[in-house]
Amino acid sequence: VETTVRVELGERSYDVAVVRGGGPERVAALVRGLAPSGVVVVTDATVARLHGEAMLAAIRAAGRLPAQVVVVPGESSKSVGGVERVWRGLLAAGLDRQGLVVAHGGGVVGDLAGFAAATWLRGVRVVHAPTTLLSMVDSAVGGKTGIDLDGKNLVGAFHQPSGVVADLAWLETLDPGELRAGLGEVWKTAILAGGEPFERLERGGRDDLLPVVLDCVRHKAAVVTRDERDEGERASLNLGHTLGHALEVMLGLRHGEAVALGIAFVVRLAVGIGRLDATVAERILSVGRGLDLPLALPRRVGLGELRPLLRRDKKALAGEVRWILPTGLGSWTQAPVPEPAIEAALTDIAPG
Amino acid sequence: VETTVRVELGERSYDVAVVRGGGPERVAALVRGLAPSGVVVVTDATVARLHGEAMLAAIRAAGRLPAQVVVVPGESSKSVGGVERVWRGLLAAGLDRQGLVVAHGGGVVGDLAGFAAATWLRGVRVVHAPTTLLSMVDSAVGGKTGIDLDGKNLVGAFHQPSGVVADLAWLETLDPGELRAGLGEVWKTAILAGGEPFERLERGGRDDLLPVVLDCVRHKAAVVTRDERDEGERASLNLGHTLGHALEVMLGLRHGEAVALGIAFVVRLAVGIGRLDATVAERILSVGRGLDLPLALPRRVGLGELRPLLRRDKKALAGEVRWILPTGLGSWTQAPVPEPAIEAALTDIAPG
Repeated sequence: VETTVRVELGERSYDVAVVRGGGPERVAALVRGLAPSGVVVVTDATVARLHGEAMLAAIRAAGRLPAQVVVVPGESSKSVGGVERVWRGLLAAGLDRQGLVVAHGGGVVGDLAGFAAATWLRGVRVVHAPTTLLSMVDSAVGGKTGIDLDGKNLVGAFHQPSGVVADLAWLETLDPGELRAGLGEVWKTAILAGGEPFERLERGGRDDLLPVVLDCVRHKAAVVTRDERDEGERASLNLGHTLGHALEVMLGLRHGEAVALGIAFVVRLAVGIGRLDATVAERILSVGRGLDLPLALPRRVGLGELRPLLRRDKKALAGEVRWILPTGLGSWTQAPVPEPAIEAALTDIAPG
Repeated sequence: VETTVRVELGERSYDVAVVRGGGPERVAALVRGLAPSGVVVVTDATVARLHGEAMLAAIRAAGRLPAQVVVVPGESSKSVGGVERVWRGLLAAGLDRQGLVVAHGGGVVGDLAGFAAATWLRGVRVVHAPTTLLSMVDSAVGGKTGIDLDGKNLVGAFHQPSGVVADLAWLETLDPGELRAGLGEVWKTAILAGGEPFERLERGGRDDLLPVVLDCVRHKAAVVTRDERDEGERASLNLGHTLGHALEVMLGLRHGEAVALGIAFVVRLAVGIGRLDATVAERILSVGRGLDLPLALPRRVGLGELRPLLRRDKKALAGEVRWILPTGLGSWTQAPVPEPAIEAALTDIAPG
């Protein structure tokens, strides 16, 4: 099985390797090829405890002396204070323009370390070593980096990595809730990709994650190649995220769970305004149920309390929300939706 | 007189307009053409008091409703806390991806607002309206943005503006010390450009600043076109800056004054190691004296106290300092220099 996906971006092209074990050695080989001198591994305390020593040892075995910057696990590190701590770690390590950052962790570590690398000395290289399903299938690929500022990812940069290594062995220590949440982004990608990726999930084929992760990485890579700077098609990857981001903040949900709820919502919304066939909608929702994803809100949510949060979405700061809507398997559109339809879809996903 | 210089960078090309009066109207015309909706003027308290209302009024007259973010004057605003204040100002203004930042002020405002624009929503457009000689001839052109983190400009981004408007009328309210300091960058550029720009200063032609500023902008534009990302020739623009940055921090000097001292130093250094003819060196120093620039240190400075500061220079974080040295009028080289030669040149610029 070919387990490498190329992200084609001209001179910024890179490979995403999906492997079963041996991740630290794959990262170390990349480090040796890319960095003549300084290497800083940015990670969080949980990943450092479980997988940090193996990563550092592999890089040492490749003849480099890595420094390590450890941040607090969780979204709170994706902040101005969090990125300042990483910058100060790069300063303490004396990381120069030829240096390399390795982002070893989940989506928070990848977004944070990627943004720090994008802005350190006006840009040094980064290799992503994602340890969660969510970051393997989505955030580690495509070069979006950033931190939160009240709203999610309001500050950031486009900064493509020089390589990505996703080792499925890292998922074995993942909290089961985190793994399930990651399936939210898998579900999203399968809907957008359609075809075999969707049918694989429909057949219940999620026990072997390797082909599932590869499906997602391939779809993401293709979209990023066509629209690196998020000026068109890449907006589709926000399927479920407009409501998802709001729910994540409001209800304190995991990102992937919030996205799953957001997808259930836009599926109802698309049916409600006549853009999606009810039979296809049922197939989509059935796959979500098969992935054990939450498809109903933990409590009733009204448009009144959502509105200020939706307005903080970075695509709608000064205007109306334009929803990403599925129009079939492998097809989508983006459009504003009248408030009564939004209210109706919120009722559809209200707690039973 | 043609007073516009084009910075050729493919689809990132833009014009630098150097005008005598009417700056706010030129900015407003750019704003109207570039921004369908949100505009935020970032400025400091001094510029806001002197020129802020004229800028806001011109933008309003062009049919846009500008918000204003005012920072504390001085280098302390080029900090993590400073950029967070600007980001929060952009958030409060609801600046979306089609929005525009106008950086109205000196080098600090330009670097800070440029970095905030580079990272807000992963990049919105910026127009520079430099109000100091230093920012007109150097920092507002070329897309370097950043903040300090112990060392100068350690955090930043390359982010080309969509236009630059330098109104010489803004210089009329400038502190005479600031104006003189700006001549440090003028001197630097004349040495690097050689030919007519150098001879204009040699003839004493600094009373009419328009051709002087245009000379500098033309040279900077040409260098940036050839080496946008600072991978080769652009390093020449750091002439005088390696020691200059260290002196700026250590002695609390103005940037331009510190650069002037740094230039006097590298001129002696280049003569000392046999890379620059003594007659040419005397012509260079004579122009510096003609500009009333400080060419001797306010107090004796030893290599021992300089060393830790030189190592914090972002080009030398993990290695030896490679000095930019003039080798003639319009020519330069970059090389490490043995410590005894550095000690000797420091003695050359010691206080009389």
